[in-house]
Amino acid sequence: MSTSWQEIAAKKQAQREALIPPKWRLDASKYQSRSNLLNVPVECGILSGRQVDITSNYDAVGLLAQMRDGSFSVEEVVTAFCGLRHLANQIFFDEAIERARSLDRERAADSIKPLPKLFGLPISLKDSFKVPGVDATIGFICFANDKSTKHSVLCDMLLEQGAVFYCKTNIPQTLMTADSDNNVFGRCLNPHNTSLTAGGSSGGEGALIAMRGSIVGIGTDIAGSIRIPAHCNGTYGFKPSAGLVSLMGKRAPGRTGLVGVAPVAGPLATFARANALIMQVVLEAELWRRDSMLNHIPWRGITLPDRPLKIGIVEDDGQTTPTPPMRRAIQEVSEKLNNAGVEVVPLKLTHVKQDMDLLWFSFSMDGAKDYINSMERSGEPMVNSVRKTGLVAMPEKNIHEVLDFTIARIGAQERYREMWLSHGLDALIMPPAPFTAPKIDMWGGIIAYTGLWNLMDYPAAIIPVSKVSPNDKPDGAAKYGEEDAKFYKEYTGPDDYEDAPTTIQIVGMKQEDEYLAIVVEKLDAIIQGW
Amino acid sequence: MSTSWQEIAAKKQAQREALIPPKWRLDASKYQSRSNLLNVPVECGILSGRQVDITSNYDAVGLLAQMRDGSFSVEEVVTAFCGLRHLANQIFFDEAIERARSLDRERAADSIKPLPKLFGLPISLKDSFKVPGVDATIGFICFANDKSTKHSVLCDMLLEQGAVFYCKTNIPQTLMTADSDNNVFGRCLNPHNTSLTAGGSSGGEGALIAMRGSIVGIGTDIAGSIRIPAHCNGTYGFKPSAGLVSLMGKRAPGRTGLVGVAPVAGPLATFARANALIMQVVLEAELWRRDSMLNHIPWRGITLPDRPLKIGIVEDDGQTTPTPPMRRAIQEVSEKLNNAGVEVVPLKLTHVKQDMDLLWFSFSMDGAKDYINSMERSGEPMVNSVRKTGLVAMPEKNIHEVLDFTIARIGAQERYREMWLSHGLDALIMPPAPFTAPKIDMWGGIIAYTGLWNLMDYPAAIIPVSKVSPNDKPDGAAKYGEEDAKFYKEYTGPDDYEDAPTTIQIVGMKQEDEYLAIVVEKLDAIIQGW
Repeated sequence: MSTSWQEIAAKKQAQREALIPPKWRLDASKYQSRSNLLNVPVECGILSGRQVDITSNYDAVGLLAQMRDGSFSVEEVVTAFCGLRHLANQIFFDEAIERARSLDRERAADSIKPLPKLFGLPISLKDSFKVPGVDATIGFICFANDKSTKHSVLCDMLLEQGAVFYCKTNIPQTLMTADSDNNVFGRCLNPHNTSLTAGGSSGGEGALIAMRGSIVGIGTDIAGSIRIPAHCNGTYGFKPSAGLVSLMGKRAPGRTGLVGVAPVAGPLATFARANALIMQVVLEAELWRRDSMLNHIPWRGITLPDRPLKIGIVEDDGQTTPTPPMRRAIQEVSEKLNNAGVEVVPLKLTHVKQDMDLLWFSFSMDGAKDYINSMERSGEPMVNSVRKTGLVAMPEKNIHEVLDFTIARIGAQERYREMWLSHGLDALIMPPAPFTAPKIDMWGGIIAYTGLWNLMDYPAAIIPVSKVSPNDKPDGAAKYGEEDAKFYKEYTGPDDYEDAPTTIQIVGMKQEDEYLAIVVEKLDAIIQGW
Repeated sequence: MSTSWQEIAAKKQAQREALIPPKWRLDASKYQSRSNLLNVPVECGILSGRQVDITSNYDAVGLLAQMRDGSFSVEEVVTAFCGLRHLANQIFFDEAIERARSLDRERAADSIKPLPKLFGLPISLKDSFKVPGVDATIGFICFANDKSTKHSVLCDMLLEQGAVFYCKTNIPQTLMTADSDNNVFGRCLNPHNTSLTAGGSSGGEGALIAMRGSIVGIGTDIAGSIRIPAHCNGTYGFKPSAGLVSLMGKRAPGRTGLVGVAPVAGPLATFARANALIMQVVLEAELWRRDSMLNHIPWRGITLPDRPLKIGIVEDDGQTTPTPPMRRAIQEVSEKLNNAGVEVVPLKLTHVKQDMDLLWFSFSMDGAKDYINSMERSGEPMVNSVRKTGLVAMPEKNIHEVLDFTIARIGAQERYREMWLSHGLDALIMPPAPFTAPKIDMWGGIIAYTGLWNLMDYPAAIIPVSKVSPNDKPDGAAKYGEEDAKFYKEYTGPDDYEDAPTTIQIVGMKQEDEYLAIVVEKLDAIIQGW
């Protein structure tokens, strides 16, 4: 007799609970009246003072330095983060702490051997990456209890560089929505405000990093899946160009990407320099030696030019009007950059609807049948946010349509290349969405702000700016017609969106990821006032 | 009343003849009894002694140095090559000599301004590249008299670097065969032995360079179209990895390549260092600034490692047995490398038939209908060599077959990556074909030796080794069955293949084009005994 999907999910969730040692169990009922959970890890008493210090006061680069000079042992760092992983969907503490101890032992045994670049760094992983003995469900019941037997290629390399994996984080069923909800592990909430979405598809990463249950994690992005959770949770995120960071050996929800727009893997972190470090370590590792899908693009150690930066500012996508807090974020950033001597050029995008049709075409080339097939295998229902995207109802395409798509995509990329170079841009700033984290399951298919850069294959980063303020009053400023006005009205004012982060997206040119990483650090320092 | 294809062709050929000034006309009847025409340019009396010196005694790098230090003017160099272009299918001498004069004038007017990297260098172009006012027929009557209005992106860059274009060279109808025969300009012969093919699809380049009517030219390659003519004509050729050299603004015969195996542009030349120079100039020009299809891979100025090189040697493709002269070439090369301290590793390829099925799949995804459509537009017949490939009879594929193909191709690339790295190869040597230039229209679909490296996207170069020798007696050594024996028997002995060049193919790893270029120069010096 086959097991129902409900039984599989219940068992999976019980397994996870059982893995949490009693000392790390949280009495969730104590916090149910709150919508902002960010301070719970510090308040709840699970962590010692030193553990609070470790998890609160350092970013990845800072912690690496502390472990390198011996101020913290790897074991105590890893243990502290294990104690904090309230939002991870799968955990493997015992293995993580054992590995931490063994790193400490090896170091003690040979103090001359140079330490690897990520010595002792705890890194969280989106559920789709593979770790032996752990599931990679990508939110489908049919992949629950199908334990991976080896690491994804990227994970292997990070381990060689000294990383410690300790948990995997939640995602949406299919990976193709901005709400990290699935029938296996349930929904990931936004710790800034639990009535809002944590974003997706790397929603678990975003939420865990916001709570400092992780300081750096690996997500993936084919339309915004790194940037949307970074935005919703107010963390830093970096979506690389395609073909730089290995996705090999990762569980994929479909197979469309091999012809059209490719998914990419990239980091989310508490600070920009941690994302830059991950990109540097990845490119220096020459992952093309392990994955023939990658381009041989080196990390070159470039520096910023000795002149003012020139930054394009795009207020909106010409289809959906940013809500008051998002408009304010762009405006404040623009002023700060201007005051700091950065040359700011207002830009308008054209053909956005036409370009987005190409992105949806790419996602649905094969009729998106694999998603439905995966649901049918267990009999699980489609979650609400998947239904809202409309993705699985799209018809299959023929070879001539596919070839027309590739030509049209190149045409779009040519338009952007010309815009970029004719203005001599160092980067472009645009909101990552027309809204802050919206209410649960309201995101739908509004992905032009992020998805455009997947279609163009331009790298793009998220940096947090501020939060919804009491002055962000709702208004009737929707500019782009009925559909726009409908979404715009969802912003019902600062009380309902209390504590929701505002962020900006900083975009670089295709395969100029290293340059984007250093430009982001520079702009971030200006924007944060460092 | 529409013009017949025969009339169009006759008029096109007459136009070409009319463009040749009387002083450069050759009395072809004087040489009709010869099969080896290589010495005709020197003997015929068209060139002065100084012009013979210019065209015979320098490669591209040497000529650039002579022009740079003022020993030769650009005008006299360009004029000398114009006088020698007996095999070009389209010529534009007046424009070339005018441009040469203007380069000389500009230089005289400003002796301080640094000269561009290719100052004054005459470069021949395969017919598919576009030059304003000149046709880009790709061997179809329907494209005759459709004059281009602007340069291809690559040509624009070469011009900015000081190149002088003076002719375009012959190709096969469709660009998809190894016999450069078409109804517009007729057939390009092999100047080493006119009973043999000049190869294709960049056959005109190979033949012109062999006669030193050009010292460097630009071809394209999707299955061997640079390497096959370099092989047939005993010149140097360099097929880059995909996405490094711009094909934008070039006339393409079909559109299949945008999803499957991509065509690439690359140089043919009289010496290896000229090809390396072209690759360096191209990569340093950052063509991705003009063509968004390109990868941002820099020229890094790398040097060879301080250890013996390790070279894999592949004797054959496991399907067709190399004929005696080709076996001898590989053997001699292997011995010379061994004697010079190079580590030589015999390797056998596996899955070649399966991999080649993928290549043919790629070429025929859309049913290869564009070829037929282009013929039907003028009513011209299919040439014999196109018919022999069987390409245009293949059925169209659906999206699931296309996606399966992309996954299978990655599988094949993974196999080669693992082979390469597990042996720690610096390069791999393999014949470019199982035969020297065969008789006219006999090549057919035997393209595994070159086409494999397009499927893998590995760069590959051709260097000449020697010629068919009287000792290369035919034998019955075919190893791979009936079909193989049939082809093998075509080698009827040294008399019929007199003067046919033998060459080897040197293969590098994907996107490691710069490294391959310097390895080729090193191995070439050993093989040629320099």
